[in-house]
Amino acid sequence: MSANSLDPAVAARLKRDPDGLVPAIAQQYDTGEVLMLGWMDDEALHRTLTTGRATYWSRSRQEYWVKGDTSGHVQHVKSVALDCDADTVLVKVDQVGAACHTGDRTCFDAGELRLDAS
Amino acid sequence: MSANSLDPAVAARLKRDPDGLVPAIAQQYDTGEVLMLGWMDDEALHRTLTTGRATYWSRSRQEYWVKGDTSGHVQHVKSVALDCDADTVLVKVDQVGAACHTGDRTCFDAGELRLDAS
Repeated sequence: MSANSLDPAVAARLKRDPDGLVPAIAQQYDTGEVLMLGWMDDEALHRTLTTGRATYWSRSRQEYWVKGDTSGHVQHVKSVALDCDADTVLVKVDQVGAACHTGDRTCFDAGELRLDAS
Repeated sequence: MSANSLDPAVAARLKRDPDGLVPAIAQQYDTGEVLMLGWMDDEALHRTLTTGRATYWSRSRQEYWVKGDTSGHVQHVKSVALDCDADTVLVKVDQVGAACHTGDRTCFDAGELRLDAS
């Protein structure tokens, strides 16, 4: 095991999907806004914990994706937590600019659905 | 198509995983706490939109799961949004009691990982 890999105690707990990934929720640490959901494998989680920059696995491009490397819309990591089942990550960040590639602050801003409780 | 199924315009946008599911982030609507992550298929999303109660698909039990039916820890739905890729749902709820089966308020309360940016 490489010295650069994820803490073995964390790796032993992590429950990955068949592609080796877990969903990672990015939340603005102070306002509580849910910014986006990305995906992480062990290495992306390791890099997120050790570089201070939220790093995901891009399922569409099949490569690591340091949020903001292209757009400048960096996520500075404030804290990282696993959930009770160790199959989801919550990353609290300080988001520079827009989290969404559309330019919206969050990826959920334009997507509200109609409630129809009758 | 049944009159009880998900709005076809929403169903046409939704991008599901190979099991027909999308991750659903539950957030306390007023405090912004991220409570848990569950999974929804079309029917669970439909029920969430139309019943006012957050409803998930339990991957472990392979059945619909109306949050709080067993525990009493109901999630009253305030709003529902899709993200920009239509592959994630954000459900803002009013959570009664603890969201986590461990008794913690959120499923992330006990799982903080150590940051090691050097």
